[in-house]
Amino acid sequence: MYIGAFDIGGTKTIVALADDAGKIYEKQQFPTETGDCLRHLDVCCEILCRFAEKRGLRMEQIAGIGVNLPGIVERGEGVLLRAVYAGWSQIPVRAYLSKKLRIARVVCENDVNACAVGEVRFGLGKRFSSFGWMTVSTGVGGAVVSDGRLIRGAHGYAGEFGHLKVEYQKPCGCPCGEQGCLEAHGSGTALNRLIEERTRQDAAFRAAFDRLGESPSGASCAKLAKNGNETAAAIFQQVGEYLGKGISYYTNILDPEAVIIGGGVSASLDLLMPGIRRSMERYTFAQMKDVPILPTALGYEAALMGAVAIAV
Amino acid sequence: MYIGAFDIGGTKTIVALADDAGKIYEKQQFPTETGDCLRHLDVCCEILCRFAEKRGLRMEQIAGIGVNLPGIVERGEGVLLRAVYAGWSQIPVRAYLSKKLRIARVVCENDVNACAVGEVRFGLGKRFSSFGWMTVSTGVGGAVVSDGRLIRGAHGYAGEFGHLKVEYQKPCGCPCGEQGCLEAHGSGTALNRLIEERTRQDAAFRAAFDRLGESPSGASCAKLAKNGNETAAAIFQQVGEYLGKGISYYTNILDPEAVIIGGGVSASLDLLMPGIRRSMERYTFAQMKDVPILPTALGYEAALMGAVAIAV
Repeated sequence: MYIGAFDIGGTKTIVALADDAGKIYEKQQFPTETGDCLRHLDVCCEILCRFAEKRGLRMEQIAGIGVNLPGIVERGEGVLLRAVYAGWSQIPVRAYLSKKLRIARVVCENDVNACAVGEVRFGLGKRFSSFGWMTVSTGVGGAVVSDGRLIRGAHGYAGEFGHLKVEYQKPCGCPCGEQGCLEAHGSGTALNRLIEERTRQDAAFRAAFDRLGESPSGASCAKLAKNGNETAAAIFQQVGEYLGKGISYYTNILDPEAVIIGGGVSASLDLLMPGIRRSMERYTFAQMKDVPILPTALGYEAALMGAVAIAV
Repeated sequence: MYIGAFDIGGTKTIVALADDAGKIYEKQQFPTETGDCLRHLDVCCEILCRFAEKRGLRMEQIAGIGVNLPGIVERGEGVLLRAVYAGWSQIPVRAYLSKKLRIARVVCENDVNACAVGEVRFGLGKRFSSFGWMTVSTGVGGAVVSDGRLIRGAHGYAGEFGHLKVEYQKPCGCPCGEQGCLEAHGSGTALNRLIEERTRQDAAFRAAFDRLGESPSGASCAKLAKNGNETAAAIFQQVGEYLGKGISYYTNILDPEAVIIGGGVSASLDLLMPGIRRSMERYTFAQMKDVPILPTALGYEAALMGAVAIAV
């Protein structure tokens, strides 16, 4: 059974032709055209049609399209209500694509939720039926999976881990308007802020980036930490401790089989883990301190696999 | 359909004869005999048999027995693994009762979980299918209900709200061995500690209890607060703020339709609510700040109704 997958993020999009077992036959990545959403969807459709043609498929042979959207999605009608970074609102994505491609089954989902559904079907969901999913990237998002099902909550906001309060004493501001949120202290943004602060205060740390021949960033800081730079390691430890506080709240409430981490920052999960485990040890109810905390099994393509999974 | 219900708490027990619609025909309350659990179960059986006889029922007409137990329960076999306050461990409750009463269906459950099941079947579950349950009493326990089902977690510990960390800066010790837990700051124990502290420091507050003609306690402090005593009101405010922090974690993670509060301290929910709402306003993601926070519809008998519900 063939599936079309549109993984539309705030900055990049991947279009793929896949099957219901999660095999990817064709894929192409390109920047998300913010501003005109329908024109961007047109480009996605053209690429998918080219893929179908290349493999000698008629569009009727594609059983469904899964569409990840970088914002709040009304799933019933497949409407993108609001996507702040892309500047889109009130886009009838399902109706538009269904008519244009003449494919009845178009399933739209928030990209973070889709990651969790992808993990259930194609990733660690084979080992764990109840887990917390966290996307740690510029911000922090999440999803709650119980018995293989996504728990959506009364307004579709279940899994808003990014706005758990993890710092009451010296809280940093969060884009949500509040302070002390996990997104402000345990995200890529927080990592960059700490790197910026430390390079400003600490000439030796600044010099270490110069010796590496890279400008200060999360990726170059990770290299320094792996090379034994203690300041770099301490930055990951600190971000990890905040993530661990958020994970401890989740664990105390839901006693999950595992917590699975995706998103760009998760590539440095080994560097974050000492901090995460320190907080888990201090803040989690004794019997659950050792909950497995694992990177997604789907790596960089977790969201794309999610787009496939929601349409199966 | 007749149901027998044994609501066995750490200090008191209620035995009742009910039906599957939740109507209570007979009930009797008496102290829990800590020490010898099987002897205590014998007493429960004698009372239930007397009730059956009084109403002209044969034991075969009782379709099942629901048994709440004040500790950790292995539900499959109906074994009470450990009940710290009562001093019981490894009691094969289901096997013992099933044989003694010749009733095949004996369902055992942790008392806090049973409350949530009772609420689903006989209480606010008629209005809300996904909610958080909190028992606020000497300690703080809880349960997670999603789509009318109890989420139990990987080890049966889902809903351990009592050990959410709500105070990092000046944490108080918790019976679990950790510090800063909701159970240490937002419980009946915390209420009593604050009352004790303030009466020690504040002669006018001490005198207010004397004028009331009652010794300082949660109940008498509630009377003072209702009479306009500001110190008494501030104590409830403070306990409420900690409860609100815990509820904000729950809400951010699960986006529930409601949070339902039972347990002795919930009788003062109106006094706690200003503090709860203050924390919800400060710490909950904007779209969910107004989640309904309600007392159990089952009042003092929430746990007994739970014992009926689990056996239906």
